[in-house]
Amino acid sequence: MKSPIAVPGFKAGSVAAGVRYHNRLDLGLIIADQPCAAAGIFTTNQVKAPSVVLAKKRLQNGKARAVLVNSGNANTCVGPRGAADNKRATMSLAKAAGIDPSLVLMNSTGVIGEPLAVDRVTKAIPGLVRSVSSDGLPDFARAIMTTDTRPKLALRKVAIGKGRVVIAGVAKGAGMIMPNMATMLAYILTDAVMDAGSLKKTLAAAADDSFNALTVDGDTSTSDSMIMMASGVSGIKPGRSRAFNEAVSDLCLELAQDIAKDAEGATRMFKIKVEGAKTKSDADKVARRVANSPLVKTAVHAADPNWGRVMAALGSAGVKLDPDKVSVSFVSEKGSKVLVVKGGALAPGYSEARAGKILSGSGFTIVINLGQGRAARTIFACDLSAEYVKINAEYRS
Amino acid sequence: MKSPIAVPGFKAGSVAAGVRYHNRLDLGLIIADQPCAAAGIFTTNQVKAPSVVLAKKRLQNGKARAVLVNSGNANTCVGPRGAADNKRATMSLAKAAGIDPSLVLMNSTGVIGEPLAVDRVTKAIPGLVRSVSSDGLPDFARAIMTTDTRPKLALRKVAIGKGRVVIAGVAKGAGMIMPNMATMLAYILTDAVMDAGSLKKTLAAAADDSFNALTVDGDTSTSDSMIMMASGVSGIKPGRSRAFNEAVSDLCLELAQDIAKDAEGATRMFKIKVEGAKTKSDADKVARRVANSPLVKTAVHAADPNWGRVMAALGSAGVKLDPDKVSVSFVSEKGSKVLVVKGGALAPGYSEARAGKILSGSGFTIVINLGQGRAARTIFACDLSAEYVKINAEYRS
Repeated sequence: MKSPIAVPGFKAGSVAAGVRYHNRLDLGLIIADQPCAAAGIFTTNQVKAPSVVLAKKRLQNGKARAVLVNSGNANTCVGPRGAADNKRATMSLAKAAGIDPSLVLMNSTGVIGEPLAVDRVTKAIPGLVRSVSSDGLPDFARAIMTTDTRPKLALRKVAIGKGRVVIAGVAKGAGMIMPNMATMLAYILTDAVMDAGSLKKTLAAAADDSFNALTVDGDTSTSDSMIMMASGVSGIKPGRSRAFNEAVSDLCLELAQDIAKDAEGATRMFKIKVEGAKTKSDADKVARRVANSPLVKTAVHAADPNWGRVMAALGSAGVKLDPDKVSVSFVSEKGSKVLVVKGGALAPGYSEARAGKILSGSGFTIVINLGQGRAARTIFACDLSAEYVKINAEYRS
Repeated sequence: MKSPIAVPGFKAGSVAAGVRYHNRLDLGLIIADQPCAAAGIFTTNQVKAPSVVLAKKRLQNGKARAVLVNSGNANTCVGPRGAADNKRATMSLAKAAGIDPSLVLMNSTGVIGEPLAVDRVTKAIPGLVRSVSSDGLPDFARAIMTTDTRPKLALRKVAIGKGRVVIAGVAKGAGMIMPNMATMLAYILTDAVMDAGSLKKTLAAAADDSFNALTVDGDTSTSDSMIMMASGVSGIKPGRSRAFNEAVSDLCLELAQDIAKDAEGATRMFKIKVEGAKTKSDADKVARRVANSPLVKTAVHAADPNWGRVMAALGSAGVKLDPDKVSVSFVSEKGSKVLVVKGGALAPGYSEARAGKILSGSGFTIVINLGQGRAARTIFACDLSAEYVKINAEYRS
């Protein structure tokens, strides 16, 4: 039997408030039974949602109790009313739930530049508060979706000493995604006992190799937020437990890959691993350049091992490199490998048929070795399809 | 009557050598009656075509007599044989034409990573040399095309003192285009009397606001080359003539816009003008970020005035800015203007219908004012269509 995705100390709920569309869940709430330790990481985009500004401010004391999320409207670039509307919604929630407003965070996701129908939000809040239950996370995950085709949840249980803690995560995102932060939205809940400082460290480490290693289209949202809350209900302190941090990282990786798999119009998720770089930052730049190249993404879409496009992309990443030292391999999800480029040119014995076969699967990795050093970085990407264009030409995100 | 596109002192020719496809012109030659002053600008991609390396080297003395160009194969990332094949082709040309091999430049454009069928090239060279004539430039322009749907030529005549000089340009390019240099390939010929130093200055200034301001897909080719040659046959020295330099810039702009209009799958050419920036480099970064955003490009494709995507893109350009000072306008080719964003939010009196009408035309400009300073930069871009994906998933460029 699959464990229900729930964390002691937290409840969640959702309602259809009609923010943008009718008859779909679009307002979600996570609420802790008590004030708890909390930390967040947010978008680096200089155009920020007012909800992000508010959440950052309220997280300065390392505590939170509730997260209110609306989909359908990012409430961004709407002038001073944006901040006022977010504040009003959180005040309304605090009142209905009988909690301190300074412990309420909010996220708004959806179209940019249209005023939020805040009256619909406040009107729906009493019902939202009544809807919460300890098994409400799956519906919360549905309420925060925009162009996502499915909700994204993950669960980990970690034995620590004689006890066990639970970690659950919920995420959303399908386009405008090259978070230099979190994904568009991700919430990680645990019943472990943690302070805000260690929460933040755990979160930052987990984000670095998951959400921050993900690119769908190279566009960075104005709303990217990742919030982690620890209820402490288990009574167990993970302290510097490696197992706990690894479980959080692993959970975030699962959610990030779910986002890549559900990316707008994507038919294939793949990875770019750059190794043999002088620094991790160099490896990151090269991997992102290749992952975001429309020519590489369209070649992957066609399962065409057009490695020349990989070489052209990596050469223009703004990183000093010697093309004659570069090697490129395609590695399938199951580990079969084709060496494609060696010493900057086609590798001896290369088989285009075998290379094409690897690219026609999902989850393969393009491994690029720069032959310069020992730093490495893996970036998650997806192909570019005509469907992506269709979705983004027709949908107002 | 339209002037023939020809320049005294130069001849051009072309043949079908069968480099990749049969029965199409794919080998072109420009040859000067005498050695002449020459200068070039080349790709900044660190993965460079051997032909680019050779041309740069041979241009060090500021002289050239012939440019040999094959389409269908970039002769790049093929190991040491790449340089050997380019050298062999230029030697063969020099012998057939009876000229000094150190004055022969070469460009190869097309698929990366496949060895050039150099035997087909050398076999075709005697016929190529016989094909040259003073009115051969239009066929030369056809021979260098890859995914281009039409040849790109331009002509200017400039009165200087009592005389007149002629400037002709030929360019190609439709994908893998964000030249940080020239377009994929551009050749500018003039009968003015110039030395290599002033040629280089004129060329650099012209490229900056034309080919270097152009992005189709953010991918920088390994073959980008722009070569200018001056036969001096007119006997006229433009010296520091502003009219001459302006004519070269204007001609390059025409060719760059031809490339944007003919971009793979593009239905709409548009401009991004960033003004009010602290530095030109800041303005350039913001303009390129917006021009390359898949979300902006798909919105333009749908003529959807989804200005939130413009705000999200400009905020993540890596340039420090204050969103509350940003304004955005859409300006049609004929000059009608809609103020869309003022002070970081929707402008008062904004009409979505009017904004959409501007975007449904071609040649409009998205003007972004950062409110920080006086620097400006214009970048030429095109929309992203499902057709682009189709072309690049099916064609091996």
